[in-house]
This record gives sequence, structure tokens and C-alpha cells, in this order.
Amino acid sequence: MELFSIESPVFMTYAVAASLMVLKIMGQGWMTVYRMLRSDSGLVNPEDIQVGLINKSPRAEQLEVNDYVDRSRRMHRNDLENIPAFWVAGLLFVTTNPPLWAAQGLMYGFVLARLCHAAAYLTKQTHEVRATFYTIGSLIVMFMAVYVLVAFLT
Amino acid sequence: MELFSIESPVFMTYAVAASLMVLKIMGQGWMTVYRMLRSDSGLVNPEDIQVGLINKSPRAEQLEVNDYVDRSRRMHRNDLENIPAFWVAGLLFVTTNPPLWAAQGLMYGFVLARLCHAAAYLTKQTHEVRATFYTIGSLIVMFMAVYVLVAFLT
Amino acid sequence: MELFSIESPVFMTYAVAASLMVLKIMGQGWMTVYRMLRSDSGLVNPEDIQVGLINKSPRAEQLEVNDYVDRSRRMHRNDLENIPAFWVAGLLFVTTNPPLWAAQGLMYGFVLARLCHAAAYLTKQTHEVRATFYTIGSLIVMFMAVYVLVAFLT
Repeated sequence: MELFSIESPVFMTYAVAASLMVLKIMGQGWMTVYRMLRSDSGLVNPEDIQVGLINKSPRAEQLEVNDYVDRSRRMHRNDLENIPAFWVAGLLFVTTNPPLWAAQGLMYGFVLARLCHAAAYLTKQTHEVRATFYTIGSLIVMFMAVYVLVAFLT
Repeated sequence: MELFSIESPVFMTYAVAASLMVLKIMGQGWMTVYRMLRSDSGLVNPEDIQVGLINKSPRAEQLEVNDYVDRSRRMHRNDLENIPAFWVAGLLFVTTNPPLWAAQGLMYGFVLARLCHAAAYLTKQTHEVRATFYTIGSLIVMFMAVYVLVAFLT
Repeated sequence: MELFSIESPVFMTYAVAASLMVLKIMGQGWMTVYRMLRSDSGLVNPEDIQVGLINKSPRAEQLEVNDYVDRSRRMHRNDLENIPAFWVAGLLFVTTNPPLWAAQGLMYGFVLARLCHAAAYLTKQTHEVRATFYTIGSLIVMFMAVYVLVAFLT
């Protein structure tokens, strides 16, 4: 059976988890757009303060940092610091032909940890709560990378 | 025929689109370098304000945000929020064995949308123009991710 | 022999280099965590200034930018601007079936350049030193992308 085949359960696990994370990261961009529209603020470019279809009454304050919008940008940055590394570590992990239960536990575990992290960030939970979910996701990615190194180098 | 083979037209489409996006994202870094050199500003590290081969006359103002340089950094950030997700969604899309016309339309469409987004950002078009190209690129990536989920889960 | 097989020396080179870069990028997140804990500052969310297991004596100043912590964030951003592009350019480079010595030179060269860049950033070397290692890494990624384009389009 081919490694990256739709018939391989391990690859299917990766494809599902990676696609969900694609939707998460792109969705974060849309949350920023929604919050910019809803608060009519959070713009980042000088040229955005001019009358247009979206911006009916431009004001200089629209360029100031607005926590409501900026929170979504900070969530996005946190995603960028974690999810692309998952994509590549997960793909390489598939090539080591791991047991299905391990792939499912690690990959769906990562997805779950990142969704919980987002929920905690959004609802302004304490740093400790966010840090817990960040740590779970981060350890999973690092475990897969070390597993790949060991598999290929021994 | 192997999935990720140089003989597969769908994979070739992906390889070309993904490589162009690699050059776009790395080129954005070089645009920042060029703008830093040309404006002799836009530095971000305290240690950069010292005499050196590049910085002949260091001044504290060089650490202030300069829109000319910062615009390139904002473009870079927008790339980072969109292009890595395209890389993985596109690769997974290839594994679903889609029709060639769909792969070409979506992948070259994404490349085109991102190049237009960059041109609009660079020439300071209105928010609405930028938003249009951002939306096209984002929808393409999300469509591919949903397509992969459906293909693998049904 | 399959392209992405554990038996392919070129793919092994990629898997090792890419995994090392996964550990580098995730490790950068942990350096930020360490520096936040050690300096008891560098927080970015309003809700983080409340008494908790980690934050025993919350103060408004903890939200101010602290160069010690922010340096790690700037290193992280520089990684995000370079490493994901390496991951995809390297994977596509493998599919062109390049000579092993070329893959080893380019990929291990990239890893080395990025580690030197991190060391230079951390120890506050001059801009010129950082720029040199940045340039080496960037040229390697762009070379691989152009190589892929030429291989697929000719």
C-alpha cells in the first residue's frame, strides 16, 4: 500500500487533522475580519482610513490597537507558531509507519489541544489554562519530531 | 503512477504553485531588507544601532516604526497567515486525485490572488481591493481543506 | 524505491533536517516561556495580570515590552518567515530526485545557517553577522524552489 494513500488509516488520520488545522488557521483570519467590521476599528494601514464600501466614516482612531481585534491577531500568531510545525512533523511521522492508535492519539490530541487553547484565549481564561493547552500541543509536535529523528537515524 | 511523481500533471501543478509561493514569501523578506537599506531605518534590535558595514551613521530614530519598511513586514505577516496553509491544503488535495482542471484553477487561482493582493498592498489600494484578493485566496484554501475532509471521511 | 521512503537517503536527509527545524521552532516558543518566567514580565494579554499559579504578584508593567522576552519573539518571527518555506521547498526538492550530496549540502547547510543565525541573534551580534546567516538560509530555500520549477517545467 502506498504511504500517502487514501486507503492508509494513518495517512487518513493525518489528512483529517491537518485539514482541520487549515480550517482553524484560516478561520482565525475571518475572526479578525469579523471583529474589525463589528468594532469598526483595528485597521493597520494608513490608506484604510478613507471612505469606502466597508469604511463609511473613517477616523484616525481606527488605526489604534483595539484589544477586541488584536486578541484575534494574537491567537493567529500563536497558531502560526504551532500549526505549521505540526503539519510537517505529522507528515514525517506518517512516513515512519507508526501504529494507528499512536497517530490518532497524537494527531487528534493536537487538534483538541489547539481548539481548547483557542477557546481559553477567546474567553480570557487565566494564563495557566492557556499554558496547559499550549504545552500539550507543543509536546506532541516535539515528540513526533524526535520520533522521526530516532526512526531515521537508527 | 506514483502520486507525487514528476509525471503527474496534478502534482506538477502543485509543485509549480507551491514553489512560486516559496519565492513570493522569501522575496518579501528581501523587500524588507531593500527598504531597510534604502530608507536607512526600520531596525528592530537595539544592537543594530552601532557603526558597521551596513549602518554607517547609527541613530536612535532608526528603531522607530517606519511605514515604508513596516508595510513590507505587514505584507509578510499576511503571507504567513495564508501561504503555509495553502502548502499543506494543496498537498493533501493532490492525494485525493482531483481532476486536473480543478487543481489548475484552484492552485494557479491562489497564486494569482496572492500576487494581486501583494500588488494592491504595495500600491496602497483601498481596503476593499485588498480584501477582495485576500478573500479569493482564503476561500480557495478552505475549499481544498473541506474537499480533503469530504474525500477522506466519506 | 518509493520517493518518501525511509530507505531513500535523500528523503532521510530531508526528514532529519526538517525535524531539526521543527525542534528549533518549537524550542523558540519555550525560550519565550522561560524568559517570561525568569523576568516575570513580557505578558501580552490583559487577563494575564491576575494572581495565579504562575503569576504570584501581578503588576501593570508586566504587559510592557521587555527586550529580554521580546528578543525571543523576534527570533521566533524570523524563524516563521524562513523555516516553513524550507519545509515545502525541501519536500518538493526531494521529488526531483536530486543527487544526495546536493540534498545534504543544501539541507544541512540551511539547518546550520539557521542555528548560527539564532546564536548570533541571541548573543546580540551586529546586524551584519545576522544578515550573513539569514542570507545563506534564504538563498538555499530560493535555490531549491527555482530548481523545482526548472525540473518540473522543462
